[in-house]
Amino acid sequence: MIDTVYYKHDTGRLELIDQTLLPVETRNIECGTEHEVAFAIKTLQVRGAPAIGVAAAYGVAIGLAGSDNQNEPLEVSLDKICKLLISVRPTAVNLSWAVKRVQKAVLKANLQNNFEKAVKIAVKEADKIKKEDIEMCRNIGKFGAELIKDGDSWLTHCNAGALATAGYGTALGVFRAAKEMGKNFKVYVDETRPLLQGARLTAWELMQEKIDSVLICDNMAGSLIRADKVQGIVVGADRITSKGFVANKIGTYSLAVLAKYNGVPFYVAAPTSTFDLSLSYDDEIVIEERDPDEVRYIKGVQIAPADMPVYNPAFDITPPELITGIITDKGIIRPIYGQTIPEIIKS
Amino acid sequence: MIDTVYYKHDTGRLELIDQTLLPVETRNIECGTEHEVAFAIKTLQVRGAPAIGVAAAYGVAIGLAGSDNQNEPLEVSLDKICKLLISVRPTAVNLSWAVKRVQKAVLKANLQNNFEKAVKIAVKEADKIKKEDIEMCRNIGKFGAELIKDGDSWLTHCNAGALATAGYGTALGVFRAAKEMGKNFKVYVDETRPLLQGARLTAWELMQEKIDSVLICDNMAGSLIRADKVQGIVVGADRITSKGFVANKIGTYSLAVLAKYNGVPFYVAAPTSTFDLSLSYDDEIVIEERDPDEVRYIKGVQIAPADMPVYNPAFDITPPELITGIITDKGIIRPIYGQTIPEIIKS
Repeated sequence: MIDTVYYKHDTGRLELIDQTLLPVETRNIECGTEHEVAFAIKTLQVRGAPAIGVAAAYGVAIGLAGSDNQNEPLEVSLDKICKLLISVRPTAVNLSWAVKRVQKAVLKANLQNNFEKAVKIAVKEADKIKKEDIEMCRNIGKFGAELIKDGDSWLTHCNAGALATAGYGTALGVFRAAKEMGKNFKVYVDETRPLLQGARLTAWELMQEKIDSVLICDNMAGSLIRADKVQGIVVGADRITSKGFVANKIGTYSLAVLAKYNGVPFYVAAPTSTFDLSLSYDDEIVIEERDPDEVRYIKGVQIAPADMPVYNPAFDITPPELITGIITDKGIIRPIYGQTIPEIIKS
Repeated sequence: MIDTVYYKHDTGRLELIDQTLLPVETRNIECGTEHEVAFAIKTLQVRGAPAIGVAAAYGVAIGLAGSDNQNEPLEVSLDKICKLLISVRPTAVNLSWAVKRVQKAVLKANLQNNFEKAVKIAVKEADKIKKEDIEMCRNIGKFGAELIKDGDSWLTHCNAGALATAGYGTALGVFRAAKEMGKNFKVYVDETRPLLQGARLTAWELMQEKIDSVLICDNMAGSLIRADKVQGIVVGADRITSKGFVANKIGTYSLAVLAKYNGVPFYVAAPTSTFDLSLSYDDEIVIEERDPDEVRYIKGVQIAPADMPVYNPAFDITPPELITGIITDKGIIRPIYGQTIPEIIKS
């Protein structure tokens, strides 16, 4: 298994695979401050909703370790660190969920400015979040793999893999589990512009797992679906509301419409930590817009007029009526309308 | 107006803008043999269904000029040249349509091996095709521009512009005409992977025309359409059957489904030379599959594992039930079912 987010307990530093360099180069980076963790999240060296949650959880511990001897009350330092980490990316809920969980654990211990103890508690909570994340992914894989039949071809978008989680993956966890069950199937991978997480990361992961896979450009998915070459679609999620609106990588909505129009099942795979029960509808979700140069340049190579205006939303929202089911660690939620989501998530 | 395909009557050479270098570099190339013309078409230095038709028409003349003194009957040389040119790209009908038209004109003249005269006739016919193409585009523009209202935002895919025709463009001809009428509107441009004709060529053309435009990745169109930010879509076509099945750049079908699902009008703009009345249904159209490295590399930069399998169809097919209307030089055809297409095209 790929260890995407690895906290070194001896040095107190966080080791990450630099995902911006994959698949051409496999290089690890180390973060020794909360600012370095925030930078790694911001620049997508670590990405994927669950993975940035785990990384940020360790970021709190790393931040606390560096805040000792600053003549500032523990609660104040903690709050600054948490706010910094949460602010880096707005759409994925796992980030704030994980950071707040660590914050709460530290505050609950009532440590009276003992930073050393606070670091220990934060690390312990982050370890727990990481362990739970892997377990949740394995459960998602187990439930989702049942949907895949021998001879099927499935389609996925972006990277909801081991690299997007603490390991194993959500959507790719479904494929990993199906492979472990000995099933014989093929995966089509959307390259996922602008940052090509499908081409760079999902393709790399599936090749490592020796899962039969084929890369396509995002705009080719419709043609495959129309030709009955896809029996199912499964993608990850960055935030899911109580009514089943799913924020995920830009392009997800288009796939869901194509699937609906052609009668192909469309699944979302996400741990329960991705649900945000404080939100109901799509317009309550903040969609991150990123740098236009992500579209105008690919790895430094210019592909459009340098001054061409660009619209670059990182996510879109898929409404519940387009979703066949949400594969969670607690089972597949379907139909997802009405009250089923809060009931299952809180169970 | 951009002169995409320019035959130099003094030297007998064909000058083309090398579209693979745009928008970073504007460089012309010259073709002095039919093989050079075929190579320019194959490698997309010249592309777009009407433009490759015009280029290939001149290619016949250039080929004949080079075939003199080869102890071969005129008809045999002519046939070889035409077959070579037609074979380079299978999907766009304009290529074979234009080449066959020149061939017919030469044969009809009954020249008894007078190559010099044959070249003259071929050039004259190619000139005529080019002139007609520009006129057809202007008519398409005139009919299509009526659909655009002040304040509208429209979406287009790939490049159906001056660069894809002898000048003016089909889908972009609609925008050019609307601009000439003084209308105030915005154009969203799909970048169009893998070869980025939208980002490279359409963005460049629209900026040159000072038409308000915004570049997006292909997978962002759905999100714009869902948010009611697009009032209409217009794309070009490479081949249209008598029943209204449209072969066009990969990704067109997805847009048409997204438009249908969201109640947005979806138009195809194409000259009558793009209709192939010998075909009726989608499965009769040959879809060109191109080199996997077009997906794995962007301008030499690796973006996927080098040995990742790839599916790279250059075109897809949009069925008539998704098309609001086809904007031709003879008017807008709608509804396009049944017998309307043959009637109008043959009129």
